[in-house]
Amino acid sequence: MNAEIVSVGSELLLGQIVDTHAATMAQVLAECGLTCQRRSTVGDHMERIVATLKEAFSRADIVITIGGLGPTSDDLTRDALAEAMGLPLVLDRDVESHLREIFAVRRIAWLPVLGRQAEKPAGAEIIPNANGTAPGLWVEANGKIGIALPGPKSEFLPMARGEVRDRLGRLTRGAVILSRTLRIAGLGESRVEALLGDILASSNPTVAPYAQPAEVHLRLTASAEDKMQAEKLLGPLEADIRHILGNAVYGADDDTLEKAVLDLAVAFGASVSVAESMTGGLVAQRLTSVPGASECFKGGIVSYAAEAKASLLGVSEATLAAHTPVSAEVAMEMATGVRERLGTDWGIAVTGNAGPTSDAGGRPVGLTYIAVAGPDGVSVHEHQLRGSREDVRQRASQWALLAWRNAMIES
Amino acid sequence: MNAEIVSVGSELLLGQIVDTHAATMAQVLAECGLTCQRRSTVGDHMERIVATLKEAFSRADIVITIGGLGPTSDDLTRDALAEAMGLPLVLDRDVESHLREIFAVRRIAWLPVLGRQAEKPAGAEIIPNANGTAPGLWVEANGKIGIALPGPKSEFLPMARGEVRDRLGRLTRGAVILSRTLRIAGLGESRVEALLGDILASSNPTVAPYAQPAEVHLRLTASAEDKMQAEKLLGPLEADIRHILGNAVYGADDDTLEKAVLDLAVAFGASVSVAESMTGGLVAQRLTSVPGASECFKGGIVSYAAEAKASLLGVSEATLAAHTPVSAEVAMEMATGVRERLGTDWGIAVTGNAGPTSDAGGRPVGLTYIAVAGPDGVSVHEHQLRGSREDVRQRASQWALLAWRNAMIES
Repeated sequence: MNAEIVSVGSELLLGQIVDTHAATMAQVLAECGLTCQRRSTVGDHMERIVATLKEAFSRADIVITIGGLGPTSDDLTRDALAEAMGLPLVLDRDVESHLREIFAVRRIAWLPVLGRQAEKPAGAEIIPNANGTAPGLWVEANGKIGIALPGPKSEFLPMARGEVRDRLGRLTRGAVILSRTLRIAGLGESRVEALLGDILASSNPTVAPYAQPAEVHLRLTASAEDKMQAEKLLGPLEADIRHILGNAVYGADDDTLEKAVLDLAVAFGASVSVAESMTGGLVAQRLTSVPGASECFKGGIVSYAAEAKASLLGVSEATLAAHTPVSAEVAMEMATGVRERLGTDWGIAVTGNAGPTSDAGGRPVGLTYIAVAGPDGVSVHEHQLRGSREDVRQRASQWALLAWRNAMIES
Repeated sequence: MNAEIVSVGSELLLGQIVDTHAATMAQVLAECGLTCQRRSTVGDHMERIVATLKEAFSRADIVITIGGLGPTSDDLTRDALAEAMGLPLVLDRDVESHLREIFAVRRIAWLPVLGRQAEKPAGAEIIPNANGTAPGLWVEANGKIGIALPGPKSEFLPMARGEVRDRLGRLTRGAVILSRTLRIAGLGESRVEALLGDILASSNPTVAPYAQPAEVHLRLTASAEDKMQAEKLLGPLEADIRHILGNAVYGADDDTLEKAVLDLAVAFGASVSVAESMTGGLVAQRLTSVPGASECFKGGIVSYAAEAKASLLGVSEATLAAHTPVSAEVAMEMATGVRERLGTDWGIAVTGNAGPTSDAGGRPVGLTYIAVAGPDGVSVHEHQLRGSREDVRQRASQWALLAWRNAMIES
């Protein structure tokens, strides 16, 4: 069975709001094992909503609308759904008396227009709305299912993740689609594809790579009769991929690199401090974004001005003069300096030129040195990073976390 | 003329990412005076992309695709656009040699698959991509225009808001929609609405407030025959609003608070340093994200562990013991400590509890102290911030920048 989502609202077509509900609904469909091949967005315009719904019903078994169920004249989804499904619109007396009660409690005088929210395509079942007035609708006719959900977040989310999800799950009687995302850092997308070769052609599970800033995400998706069968398909494939890519797979699903690296540090019982120049606090900020970071992360020094490298980190004036602040030598002294000053097992340092122009020492935009000082000494890597100032800083922070991760793994 | 947007990517149909680009593109269309009556989303599947594009072209004069321009086998938009428009796919030799240069600089061996990004529907014009490899495409054929834009944010946004917006604006031949966004910090949305009153009911320009994390953006949009007329409508309204809201308007359009604050510091010839605990480097990172930050920003200290507050910033052990690290007293000593150690005109300090749970001292999640030390002494503010750990840290960095801005303005 496959489903389509139709979002209704002129504000979506003007870009005034971002359609997060469509993404939520798509997640619910995937979780229920329903395929979604198309999503559409249409404005508050009767003929266009009807046309969009008819097209969706011509392709899909289930069509879910979001929005346009309120009482005002531009709330047209109820009427359009009835027309698209060839059903008359009728009044639901139970819903009407429920609405009259709600408005009585709110001390709002009953207006005929409010009664529109008690109308439904003939034969529709009501999906109760605990947080608002317009109920959701579940309509079955001519072998198709139409589902109408209200747009306000506090009304949409409980229905979509609650009764609608339960009912959709029952429809698919156990057929599930299970996805897992492997998160890869330190290898580019083309390199990942070259290493995986034929694995990318797998049809169940499917394997799809997505390039992210300085990462590659690999999504494995299995379809099966039930969750256990789906797990049995995913497991061996995931193991193969992890075997081929090795340490480059740093985590899965919602793991971030900073969380993966901190988890590793906790496992090693290791503490860390950070000395940053071009990233200006980004590495420290990423590490401290993880709840419980204080277990490993002790502190950081943002030595942005050259003087600060000397005064706060003890980088020698001679090294700064001989090699300029953007150099392997300065990166190494920053790493050892911060490690000593904070008394941590590891010290990470980043220095470079994030742009927008070559620096006073003539170092090009993107040239970056990352040093890691640890119990066995200090190592340094040179990178030529690309992109905007923001990209360069982001990539530098990524390589810094990776360098520390690799140093811990190798130690 | 009317336009449709087609977003391409299976990850969108699985709800793994939210389609913010479609909203951005819709805004650009509205700003250019183009009507958008439909948006569609389709997965990485050749026949379905072609079908979706053909349907869009049957309704609209202009179809804009987002995503699917990368080099991998599931990047199908280029091929699908050529097929939907009835054009052969050809190699653009200039793009290919440009790509070869890029990969040579990155020291990545050329692979045939990379050359796919140099293909285009015959006759297509290239929209240069300053931040990535896949160029955008502008294709005119049979009275229709097809525009293909890459999906990565750093590539999509500059194209959509830059060359594509300019070209689309020229298509509408002078009838312009001009927008300006005033950026407001330190006042909530309801307060802004109360202060502006009737101004919000203006019909040309329209005035629309958008709540952002710890900011309010006010978008003024004027329609007129030409840019000069539009400017004449916008100017007086903007002046009125700035008069009413005063210093709370920190900037316009793409200004960020960090840039506005640094610009002010440059104007004052002031230098600054930052001491951070709960924000873990975020304030320093935001300030150094601005090109040329080194003119004012000298350095920062992330004193995450309590010991680091004493050893790196000179916060007294007695103060830490008597008041706990999350206190007005510690914030003040951090601000004066970092100002002295870095020898700057101003020192900003943030300490607080970002969550997820109350700290050892029993301070609730969200409790935050921000201190600013300057030539005339030190001031401190207490905030009770709400939201997730990420929200709390973001809001704390916002209030820290604002506190410094206010201190400079009042000095």
